[in-house]
Amino acid sequence: MKVLTVVGITGSGKTTIIENIITELSKRRYHVGSVKEIHYELFAIDEEGTNTDRHNKAGADLVTARGYFETDILHKERLSMNDILKYYDHDYVVLEGVDDFYVPKIISAHTTQEIDAKLDETVFAISGRIANELDTYKGIPVINPVSDIERLVDIIEEKIFSVLPNLPEKCCGECEYSCKQLVAKILAGEKTREDCPIGQKEQVRLHIGGQEIDMVPFVQDILRNAVEGVVKELDGYNKNATISVTIGDNSDTTY
Amino acid sequence: MKVLTVVGITGSGKTTIIENIITELSKRRYHVGSVKEIHYELFAIDEEGTNTDRHNKAGADLVTARGYFETDILHKERLSMNDILKYYDHDYVVLEGVDDFYVPKIISAHTTQEIDAKLDETVFAISGRIANELDTYKGIPVINPVSDIERLVDIIEEKIFSVLPNLPEKCCGECEYSCKQLVAKILAGEKTREDCPIGQKEQVRLHIGGQEIDMVPFVQDILRNAVEGVVKELDGYNKNATISVTIGDNSDTTY
Repeated sequence: MKVLTVVGITGSGKTTIIENIITELSKRRYHVGSVKEIHYELFAIDEEGTNTDRHNKAGADLVTARGYFETDILHKERLSMNDILKYYDHDYVVLEGVDDFYVPKIISAHTTQEIDAKLDETVFAISGRIANELDTYKGIPVINPVSDIERLVDIIEEKIFSVLPNLPEKCCGECEYSCKQLVAKILAGEKTREDCPIGQKEQVRLHIGGQEIDMVPFVQDILRNAVEGVVKELDGYNKNATISVTIGDNSDTTY
Repeated sequence: MKVLTVVGITGSGKTTIIENIITELSKRRYHVGSVKEIHYELFAIDEEGTNTDRHNKAGADLVTARGYFETDILHKERLSMNDILKYYDHDYVVLEGVDDFYVPKIISAHTTQEIDAKLDETVFAISGRIANELDTYKGIPVINPVSDIERLVDIIEEKIFSVLPNLPEKCCGECEYSCKQLVAKILAGEKTREDCPIGQKEQVRLHIGGQEIDMVPFVQDILRNAVEGVVKELDGYNKNATISVTIGDNSDTTY
């Protein structure tokens, strides 16, 4: 799953850029999802007094509204981006305004001051009204999100890679960089996605409720040792054969 | 995870019953979630023209709005109850107006005609304004949802069991009944939840090189404890969800 984010101040045109990216990616037959960060303290999607709001106020911390054509799952807490992305199984997920998750970034801006305020090595394109004045800025392409959307999405197809695990550095340490640094190195062509061992076809895979759970290699080793420690005593064990263990009814598991 | 539903015509007081049930279950320290079925064709939680609505109209079929205090995951399709329940990890989930999923049912009603329209063997209690007139109806307790909520929740604690798999009969056939029939049999005391082999914690299955390896229950317990001991520390662990672990390339494994 490939993930990118569009950042910029309110009113800089982020949503217009994203609409055009989603439309163009969809035209190219990709399955696209999105996440919108809402920087507004009083944000509540549900109106006061609706039935679902009443469920929540009575004490339900997860309330779903199921209609004929949509299903809205309302968590009464801020989820981490990693927790949100567990719900996605898309070719591309486009984030709007998300700034605490390390993925390649487009800056939406009117002015070079607005660019400078957000610029770092994870930026691979700049868009928004500034594209009327500049073609590149500090070596980064500046692209009109309407008239030149095909070129912007060509760059997305070329540059964006499977999302990095965004694990805290102290829990991972599998490559010598933080995820933010590795995003920059991959965009610069100095490293590739394969330099991160996580999210590759690991030898030990774990699904919980049908969702694949990423494990750093040392956790994979612990789990492998735990399972093999038991099953190697059983008739039928063969150290070269694939072992699979299912706990539960498997009806919620998809392969 | 225990699931019940409250059904009844619009205006019969379902939400009031559910509010009181959720409040009382929460008071008893249970973790409670809910699902509201919206029988209104034009239902859309998002307003026309919001940024998330624009993402959706551009082609994103899954859009998340993340605020400071809530995270709303908006699927642009009607999900099945089984798919919705994968998001839950609660002691109780209370459904409002859901009528296509086999779980024990409370009817909310003003009149006996309204009761009769919804009555079947999966009904374990009746509530709503009819409780001002009757104490029981056809052997089923009729309970005031406000003044007598403690008794209603006592009955819920006594009667409600872990949700059945609600698999299509032709795909299951593990017991001799449909899930609807088994709900009725369990409520009547003729069967227990253990008569459904699916979703029990006991089910630990092991394949080595694609061959199922039989394990006596105590070996199943050892293997379950070994796996759960590791995976319960990971993000994404949910004690109700099926866990599957694969060691090796999976190419020789069949499910």
